[in-house]
Amino acid sequence: MHLFSLIGGVGHHQGAWRRPNSRAEGATSLDYYSDIAALAERGTIDALLMADGLSLNSTHLASGCFPHIEPLTMLSALAARTSRIGLVGSVSTTFSEPYNVARQFATLDHISAGRAAWNIVTSGHGEVNFGGQPLPQHSDRYERADEYVEVVTALWNSWDPDAIVLDRANGVYADAAKVHKINHVGKHFTVEGPLNVSRSPQGRPVLVQAGSSGTGRSFAARHAEVVFTAQQTLAGCQDFYSDMKARIRAAGRDPEQVKILPGVHPLLGSTEAEALRMEDELRHLIRTDIGMAWLSKQLGGVDLSGLDPSRPVPEELLPAVETVQERRSRYEVFRQLAVEEKYSINRLIEAEVMSQGHLVMVGAPEQIADRFAKWVAEGGADGFMMLPSYLPEGLELIVDGVIPELRKRGLFRTEYTGTTLRDHLGLEPLAAPDGQ
Amino acid sequence: MHLFSLIGGVGHHQGAWRRPNSRAEGATSLDYYSDIAALAERGTIDALLMADGLSLNSTHLASGCFPHIEPLTMLSALAARTSRIGLVGSVSTTFSEPYNVARQFATLDHISAGRAAWNIVTSGHGEVNFGGQPLPQHSDRYERADEYVEVVTALWNSWDPDAIVLDRANGVYADAAKVHKINHVGKHFTVEGPLNVSRSPQGRPVLVQAGSSGTGRSFAARHAEVVFTAQQTLAGCQDFYSDMKARIRAAGRDPEQVKILPGVHPLLGSTEAEALRMEDELRHLIRTDIGMAWLSKQLGGVDLSGLDPSRPVPEELLPAVETVQERRSRYEVFRQLAVEEKYSINRLIEAEVMSQGHLVMVGAPEQIADRFAKWVAEGGADGFMMLPSYLPEGLELIVDGVIPELRKRGLFRTEYTGTTLRDHLGLEPLAAPDGQ
Repeated sequence: MHLFSLIGGVGHHQGAWRRPNSRAEGATSLDYYSDIAALAERGTIDALLMADGLSLNSTHLASGCFPHIEPLTMLSALAARTSRIGLVGSVSTTFSEPYNVARQFATLDHISAGRAAWNIVTSGHGEVNFGGQPLPQHSDRYERADEYVEVVTALWNSWDPDAIVLDRANGVYADAAKVHKINHVGKHFTVEGPLNVSRSPQGRPVLVQAGSSGTGRSFAARHAEVVFTAQQTLAGCQDFYSDMKARIRAAGRDPEQVKILPGVHPLLGSTEAEALRMEDELRHLIRTDIGMAWLSKQLGGVDLSGLDPSRPVPEELLPAVETVQERRSRYEVFRQLAVEEKYSINRLIEAEVMSQGHLVMVGAPEQIADRFAKWVAEGGADGFMMLPSYLPEGLELIVDGVIPELRKRGLFRTEYTGTTLRDHLGLEPLAAPDGQ
Repeated sequence: MHLFSLIGGVGHHQGAWRRPNSRAEGATSLDYYSDIAALAERGTIDALLMADGLSLNSTHLASGCFPHIEPLTMLSALAARTSRIGLVGSVSTTFSEPYNVARQFATLDHISAGRAAWNIVTSGHGEVNFGGQPLPQHSDRYERADEYVEVVTALWNSWDPDAIVLDRANGVYADAAKVHKINHVGKHFTVEGPLNVSRSPQGRPVLVQAGSSGTGRSFAARHAEVVFTAQQTLAGCQDFYSDMKARIRAAGRDPEQVKILPGVHPLLGSTEAEALRMEDELRHLIRTDIGMAWLSKQLGGVDLSGLDPSRPVPEELLPAVETVQERRSRYEVFRQLAVEEKYSINRLIEAEVMSQGHLVMVGAPEQIADRFAKWVAEGGADGFMMLPSYLPEGLELIVDGVIPELRKRGLFRTEYTGTTLRDHLGLEPLAAPDGQ
């Protein structure tokens, strides 16, 4: 079983920072993140993930729900404070240049000795800070992302493994014949290469992707080595899992080499009763006005004012899936909860603010471990992307509670046996570049 | 006196990696850079600088003379391994987006607790990796850089110092009224803001600039807080110093608040004789073919084949300064050495490969300290940007030789008295944003 943990801010619950002892003051400090990373490493977790965003509005500010820092910068610092855990940075393909991003991830892979991963995201907002032109359509953003990933991986592959010769006697640092231009000329990018950072310890950083829309799944099937998804039920996970693995096979890749990790928000107590008390405490930290604003956004911008919050959103107000340009796959989750599960507006707000559409698992450590074990055994997951509700305590409860339970059952490592993230994930070494 | 040190690769001399015990194998490893940073911090040096480049050709590969890593990524990791020294990253304004760069430097400033600086560079090459369109002209690149800096500093200033309120009882993380859109609409950029990283410990990272052309000087006079320059003589430094300080005054800024640091390549031995032996050793590590290629590039692309390398380049072959688009101010240095000093091609190659046009000071620690003291006393400098010939040994000789000499004379700090780079430089705290 593979376990990732989202870190960032003071936890995935939007009111977590309001707890009396929260370390909200530390949301931009290295020591705070280092403490969390040390905890995760003690739990021999595969990797830490940092999410991202490219704009800021008054709802973000009031709720404290925004990235606080730029992920790659913080992960680079954490590379220096950790020794084994994987480091997954989210960087958008919509508002950046592939040569810059390829360099930064290759460098992160070098300085972490092989622990870097790129969570490939496309941006559904942020255009106001990048030229002010309307955002490209959902499918166009994926088209750009496809070409972007092609360029970045070609750049990472532009140095043969034996290109550096360090021939001191003859003064030859690297063999220029083993470092190749990529000569990419495409619709969105023209990049000659080679990269000016040498081949990195993992060959290239691990590729991670989270889009669960049809376009997103096809994209992941072509490129990703780890896939995140938000599903509310085991059945939903099983559907996603089998669909994804089939798509991977159809794309000519080995399904075993792609790990599927549903996002799960474990809300723990030492007993179930304590966990339920914590859930209740967190529920009271939700500001309804902010929750309403988030929910409206999550539902494609629908105007919720004037509706009875104790009743479901009328289906006819909800936009068609294919017209939603931002976070489309997450919209599908909420649409399903609203239409099929008939969640009231209040309950939808709770789902949004508690976990942004990820499944909340409430219980004692053994209960969470049971569910993790069952979902993996029954073909719903290769592991989980955990989103602790409040940090660092929520992660501490996982590391000291859930993980020992999983270890006892032989389902999770007791120590890191490899040094790179590829090792942790059991991914085969990359094939050498063409012509090797 | 303020001292910066360039780090990167295995030293500023292009053959330094060929020395038998060089740590060329470590040119991408964090431990190697951490050792250098620890050494520099022991020397209470103000800051470390990492240079950059955005392309790679066969001469770079053969000579080992390229950035090896992406500077901001490595500096972020070094922030976690150091506690006081300033961290200066070179990032080009030509091929990046101001919102991304503003976020990364603000994050570096947060995680280093106020030690970040941005060396603002414009790119004279790299276009092949960023769309393949011809590079904008020198003056257009500066025009873009001007607007770029305006946007980035406005973003850094978009959070009032007291914007984060952390009102746990009422659920208000930050006061949205104290975080401002910048609403920038310009020729090159449209950026609404605000930044999604809060105000950083220094108010904003320190701004550093190195262009010494007329355009570069005007730019520095408007923006920079630290200015680098390459000058071969004290007289050249004095001219630059007084011109620069006059321009700063003319731009309505306080000249005391801008530190001018000529680049100096100290080539040290414990005695002068030993230093001369080292110079000779390094001279023999120069590959003439590579030196010729670098020199040709440095001279605006002039074809040197067929010329007698023991004689000067005929002046009529050298292009007019204003037609040179890449590293124009450095071209002026070499043009002057070729035309006025009548350097032979061989000697120009040596100047290029030894120090890329920076002054090489060869001698024992006391001799270097004498010259540093004299240049500062006689109005040529506020300190130096040192480019150690070979790392880490070259820096060790500075830290254990030159710096104790300077301390003995009361010219350099014996310990860090502040915590931020602004403190080290003696810069006044930034004014609060408008309306504060």
